[in-house]
Amino acid sequence: MGYRIFNKLTKMKYSHKAFVPGNRLTLKDINQETIDAKYAVRGMIPIIADQLNEQISNNPNHKFPFDKIINANIGNPQQLQQSPLTWYRQVLSILQYPALIHNDDVVRHFPKDVIARATTILDKVGSVGAYSHSQGAAYFRESVAKFIEKRDGYPSDPNQIYLTSGASAAVSYLLQVLSNNDQAGFLIPIPQYPLYTATIALNKAKPIGYFLDESNNWSTDPKQIRSLIEEQNAKGIKIKALVVINPGNPTGSILSDSDIKDLIDIAAEYGIVLIADEVYQENIFEGKFTSMKKVLCELIEKNPELYSNVQLASLHSTSKGVSGECGQRGGYMELAGFKKEITDVIFKLASINLCSVVSGQALMELMVNPPKEGDESYALYKQETEGIMSTLKERAELLYQAFNKMENITCNKPMGAMYLFPRLNFDEESFPALFEEARNDNLQVDDIYCIALLRSTGICCIPGNGFGQVEGTYHLRTTFLAPGTEWIDQWSKFHNDFIEKFKK
Amino acid sequence: MGYRIFNKLTKMKYSHKAFVPGNRLTLKDINQETIDAKYAVRGMIPIIADQLNEQISNNPNHKFPFDKIINANIGNPQQLQQSPLTWYRQVLSILQYPALIHNDDVVRHFPKDVIARATTILDKVGSVGAYSHSQGAAYFRESVAKFIEKRDGYPSDPNQIYLTSGASAAVSYLLQVLSNNDQAGFLIPIPQYPLYTATIALNKAKPIGYFLDESNNWSTDPKQIRSLIEEQNAKGIKIKALVVINPGNPTGSILSDSDIKDLIDIAAEYGIVLIADEVYQENIFEGKFTSMKKVLCELIEKNPELYSNVQLASLHSTSKGVSGECGQRGGYMELAGFKKEITDVIFKLASINLCSVVSGQALMELMVNPPKEGDESYALYKQETEGIMSTLKERAELLYQAFNKMENITCNKPMGAMYLFPRLNFDEESFPALFEEARNDNLQVDDIYCIALLRSTGICCIPGNGFGQVEGTYHLRTTFLAPGTEWIDQWSKFHNDFIEKFKK
Repeated sequence: MGYRIFNKLTKMKYSHKAFVPGNRLTLKDINQETIDAKYAVRGMIPIIADQLNEQISNNPNHKFPFDKIINANIGNPQQLQQSPLTWYRQVLSILQYPALIHNDDVVRHFPKDVIARATTILDKVGSVGAYSHSQGAAYFRESVAKFIEKRDGYPSDPNQIYLTSGASAAVSYLLQVLSNNDQAGFLIPIPQYPLYTATIALNKAKPIGYFLDESNNWSTDPKQIRSLIEEQNAKGIKIKALVVINPGNPTGSILSDSDIKDLIDIAAEYGIVLIADEVYQENIFEGKFTSMKKVLCELIEKNPELYSNVQLASLHSTSKGVSGECGQRGGYMELAGFKKEITDVIFKLASINLCSVVSGQALMELMVNPPKEGDESYALYKQETEGIMSTLKERAELLYQAFNKMENITCNKPMGAMYLFPRLNFDEESFPALFEEARNDNLQVDDIYCIALLRSTGICCIPGNGFGQVEGTYHLRTTFLAPGTEWIDQWSKFHNDFIEKFKK
Repeated sequence: MGYRIFNKLTKMKYSHKAFVPGNRLTLKDINQETIDAKYAVRGMIPIIADQLNEQISNNPNHKFPFDKIINANIGNPQQLQQSPLTWYRQVLSILQYPALIHNDDVVRHFPKDVIARATTILDKVGSVGAYSHSQGAAYFRESVAKFIEKRDGYPSDPNQIYLTSGASAAVSYLLQVLSNNDQAGFLIPIPQYPLYTATIALNKAKPIGYFLDESNNWSTDPKQIRSLIEEQNAKGIKIKALVVINPGNPTGSILSDSDIKDLIDIAAEYGIVLIADEVYQENIFEGKFTSMKKVLCELIEKNPELYSNVQLASLHSTSKGVSGECGQRGGYMELAGFKKEITDVIFKLASINLCSVVSGQALMELMVNPPKEGDESYALYKQETEGIMSTLKERAELLYQAFNKMENITCNKPMGAMYLFPRLNFDEESFPALFEEARNDNLQVDDIYCIALLRSTGICCIPGNGFGQVEGTYHLRTTFLAPGTEWIDQWSKFHNDFIEKFKK
C-alpha cells in the first residue's frame, strides 16, 4: 500500500511544477503578546526542575545531593501524596462506570449516600461523556447556587453561574470580554498570581498593579487604588476591572470585611467590574473568610441606589480547599450585576468551548454539597477533611517558624491559601557578591536564591519577581504541601550556607 | 454576626464621602471581537430548542406536536443514548477510585487487562487529581506517539504532542499564536466548522474561505487556493495557515491522498502552516482516511529539500470516533516542522492553562491503545465498537436515502464524520413566499427551514449559513446520531408540508 502511494506520489511530484520552499515561522512572524506573556509558576525554575528530575530518574548514580524534586512551585496537593477524599472518588467512579452499582457484589461496598448521589446525578445529568449545557449542567449549577445562598445568606441565581475548567477559564473569559482596546486597564494586586498578568498580556490590555501592604499583613489600600485609577484615567487608560485575590495568592493573607467594603465602594463609584478570585476560601487557618458577594449583598440591602450597579464575578475551584483535585479541572464563576447583553457574550464564549469537563462539573457539585451528619459517608468525610486541614495548618506553621528562624528572612503569619511568601532581606551593602552574580547572570537576586535552593535541595520555589514585589525587595513563594519536615531542615541548612557564602 | 457587620458597615457608609454610582457595562464598553464572533452550532436555533425543551419539560400538557427535542445540531452521541465503551469506563472508574481493585469482591468483576492498564496508569502518572505536565503526562504522550507511528508508518515524537481539552483548545492555541496582527489571514474551507471563524474573529484575524466543490464530493481545488493566496498577498493579507478538515465537517467527505498532497505543496511553497483537523478519522463509511502527517512524511522521504520546512499541526479528539466521549474533553495536537522558538511559545500557552483534564488525557490513551486480540476485554470491545460503527453507517445511509427522496433536496453520499449536509434547492422563482418571509424576518431561507423543522418535529439542525455556503445556495447540517428512524419519517412528512406551503 505504502509502496503504491509512493509511486503515485513520485509521478505526481514530477508532473507538478517545481517550487521554492517557503520559510518556517520565527518569533517575528507570530503574535507578540504570546511571546511577551510570562507565567513564572511554570516558568524558568520549574523547567530547570523538570530537567533535573529527568536526569535523576534516568541515572540512579546521579551526583545530585538529593533524590527527588519537591515541587513547592505550585499548589498541587495530590502530586505531593495528599489523598483524594474517598467520597468524591466513590461517586466519580460510579459516574464513569454506572454498571458498578448494578452488581450486588460491588454495590454493597459503596455507602448508601454515595449510590444515592451518583444515581441522582446520572438521572438529572446523564452520561459524563455527553457535552453539557455550555454553562454547565443545570442540576450542578442549582447545587452551586444553594451553596452560595447557604454561605452568604443571600440569594444566588443558577442562571448566573458558569461551570468552568478550573478558575483559569473564567479569568480568560472575563479578561477577553473586558479588553476592548489597548487602553483597557486591569487593577491587579502586587504581588499577584501571574495568571492575571499573563492573561492581560494575551489580551493586549494594561496591568495596573496596586501594592499590598506587607507591613500590615498584605492588606489593601483604597487610597492608593483610587489615585491609581485617577492617574490612569488622566493617561487615557480606562480601568475595566479590579482583581481581588482573597485569600491571597501568593501572600496567604485574608481581607477583612471592611477592606472588602472599601474595594466594593471603589467599584461602585467608578463603574469598575470586580473579579473576586476566592479559590482558597476553604483554606483558612487564622481569622475568617467573607465572600465579596456577601458584603456586596449587605451593601445593596442597606443602600440599593449606591450599590445595585456593582458588577461582580466571583471565582471558585475544585483544585484547592481540602479537595486539591487540580487535575480534574472543576471550577465555577458566579456573575452579579451585569446587563444581559454582557452575560450573553460571556455565554457565547463558553459555547465556543462547548462545555467544561462534565466529571469536573460533577466534582464541583460534590464539593459544594458534601455528606451531611447522618449520611453513611459523613464520619469518614469529616475525618479525612479535618485530617487534611490540620496537616496543612501544621505544615504552614512549621515552615513559618522555620523561616522566621532563618537569618535575613521575615515572613507574615499564614492566614489562608496554600502558600508562604517570605521576604529575603538581601541588600547590596551586606550581600555585594550576590548582587554582582545576579547582574552577571542578568537575573534577579531572588532568582539566584531559588535556583541555588533547587540545585542543592531539589526544592522548587518561585521567586517573588514572578508575582511582582516592591522594587528593591525580594521574596519567594512556596507551598507547604510537601509531606514530612525533612525538606524544611534541608532548606534551613541550605539557607545558612547561602548566607555564609554571600554575606559580607 | 450578620447584624454586627451591618452596623459596622452602616457606620462606615456614613463615615465615607458619598459617591455617585458608576454605570454598568454595555456592548459599547467591551471587546468588539467577542461580540462579533458567531458559533451557529450553539447559536440561535439551538437556543430556541433549549427554550422549547424547557416548556415541554415544565408542562406535561404542552401543545407542541412532539414530546422531545432531537439535538441533531451537534455531534453529541451520548446525549442520544449511544453507550460509552465498557472498557474505557471500567479503567476510568478505577483511576477515579483505585481502592476498587484492592477489594477482592470487586476486583474479580473487572477484566484482567482493565486492572493491568489502570495499574500501569496509576503507577506511571499517579492521581488524576494532580496537575500533569502542561503538555499532558509523558506516559500518555508516548502512547499517542506509538499510535501515530503505527497509523502512518513514520516516527512521532512525544515531545511534539500536546494533550488538549478536546481539539478546540488546540485550535485556540494555534490561532492565537499565529495571529500576529489584523492582516493575518487563515484559509478555511467553506463550508467549515464555525469554531474556526469564531476563533479567528476572537483573534482579530481574517478568515479567507476556499470553497469545497459540492459537485465533486466537496473536494478541494488547489488552483483556487493558490489564487486566493496571491490575491490576498496583493491586498497585504499574509496567510498564516491553511485549515483542512478531513473527514469533512459539515460535509462528511474524505480527501484523497492526491488532494492532501496538493494542499501540502501549497503549504510548502508559501511557508503556510497546515492545521489538519482529523477528529473524525475513525468515522469512515466509504473509502479510506490517510493522515496529512503520513502524506507529509512520504513527501519528505522522497524530497526533503522541498518538504522539510512544512509546519503541520494535526488534531484529534476523544469526542468523536466510536468513543463519542464529548463531555470528557480529551484531545491531542501533534506538531511537526516548527522551530523550537515557536513550540516554546505554544508550550507556554498550555502552561498558562496548567494542564488539560487528566481523566480526559487518560481516555485519549485508552482510545489510541485499545484492548488487543487475546486480552480479556477484546471480545466485548470489538462487539461494542463494531456495533456503534454499523449503527452509525446504517443511520447515515437511511437519512441519506430519505433526503434524496425529498423534493428539492440533494445530498452527497456520506463518506465519513457524523454529519450530512444536504442542499435545499430553493430558488426565489419557485418559492417566492419563502424568500419573502426570509426577507421580512431578516433571516436566510435555510434559517426559516430549520426553525420550521424544529417547531413542527423537535428536530434541531443548523442552517448552512452557519457554516458558509456558495451565495444563493442553501443547506443544513444534521447529525445522524438520533436513535430510531421515526424522526426521519417525521422529517420527510414535514418537508412535504413545507414544500406544499411554499412552492408556487
